[in-house]
Amino acid sequence: MLINMSIKTKQRDQMIDITREVEKVLKEANVSDGMVTIYCPHTTAGITINENADPDVVHDMLMRLDEVYPWEHPKYLHMEGNSASHLKASTFGSSQTVIVSDGELVLGRWQGIYFCEFDGPRHRNYFIKLVKDTM
Amino acid sequence: MLINMSIKTKQRDQMIDITREVEKVLKEANVSDGMVTIYCPHTTAGITINENADPDVVHDMLMRLDEVYPWEHPKYLHMEGNSASHLKASTFGSSQTVIVSDGELVLGRWQGIYFCEFDGPRHRNYFIKLVKDTM
Amino acid sequence: MLINMSIKTKQRDQMIDITREVEKVLKEANVSDGMVTIYCPHTTAGITINENADPDVVHDMLMRLDEVYPWEHPKYLHMEGNSASHLKASTFGSSQTVIVSDGELVLGRWQGIYFCEFDGPRHRNYFIKLVKDTM
Repeated sequence: MLINMSIKTKQRDQMIDITREVEKVLKEANVSDGMVTIYCPHTTAGITINENADPDVVHDMLMRLDEVYPWEHPKYLHMEGNSASHLKASTFGSSQTVIVSDGELVLGRWQGIYFCEFDGPRHRNYFIKLVKDTM
Repeated sequence: MLINMSIKTKQRDQMIDITREVEKVLKEANVSDGMVTIYCPHTTAGITINENADPDVVHDMLMRLDEVYPWEHPKYLHMEGNSASHLKASTFGSSQTVIVSDGELVLGRWQGIYFCEFDGPRHRNYFIKLVKDTM
Repeated sequence: MLINMSIKTKQRDQMIDITREVEKVLKEANVSDGMVTIYCPHTTAGITINENADPDVVHDMLMRLDEVYPWEHPKYLHMEGNSASHLKASTFGSSQTVIVSDGELVLGRWQGIYFCEFDGPRHRNYFIKLVKDTM
């Protein structure tokens, strides 16, 4: 089962918690056990799993990531000027996979699933793919 | 099939080879072909696949990663003080997926599966999820 | 279904677009809906998904990644001298998973699947694993 989700980002760098959206799709699909993959079809955005409690964690992550992969660099050749966004996307990854057990996402207590914008604001989308267990 | 594993870490930054634990679960499950996902439910730890031969590789990886994402930073806001751990977790990733063929993990000659502690020492856990092929 | 692919790299750091190879395997397998995992069995190479249009993006990514994880470092202990390659491999990841729908890879318009060499030139291989949907 494959669902295409829309999302609107508001900043150049932003991590948006999409856990509830994934949970809602899971409930409606009525899958008890299996796997869910959240996939980002953009090359300047990604998906990660990280803390959902203190928003300062997201602030610190985006702040330092932007120092590690700076927006401006004398050796960048890419005319579009967003090479840092591409690096951030490959570092955090295009997708994450979460286990489904008894109809629930098997996330840790502090884990949330994030859509990571690295070249916003933009209208984006992501896919939720559910795979049911056979054993 | 879903197994919850316990692990005790002994250092702040540590990579613990859990390949044998995954192999043991695989043998007991009697799965011939499929996929196995190793999932970390913590936001300051992760899972990676890397060299299992020379322990200096792990040393060098953790050393440089700690320079790229330093423990202390004048711009960090997160009061708990472990923003670097969150960055390391998202960089290496919350999970890894390995192919299963003829009852064996399809790992390269030098590959091991590592539980990566980035804010230890702690009692941690991780999940091993086996998915059997249908085709 | 599991396919072992060979690839020859020509530079120390190189990202080779293998999207067409994955598509070809998918067509021959005649799978309509499911998942495909592209897995790298090497510890100094990886798989990522990123822009397939402007080759300058790949240039900029490899250039900056090499600054973040430099080849030479006074604190590296690993005698083989390729600790940076191991770090790059764990940062980009050993595998990527792509959704299959109606017999096609669900990639974004600008997304390509890359085999990432970080310690070449070498003869390498990677695995393509297809998993068919059951629901």
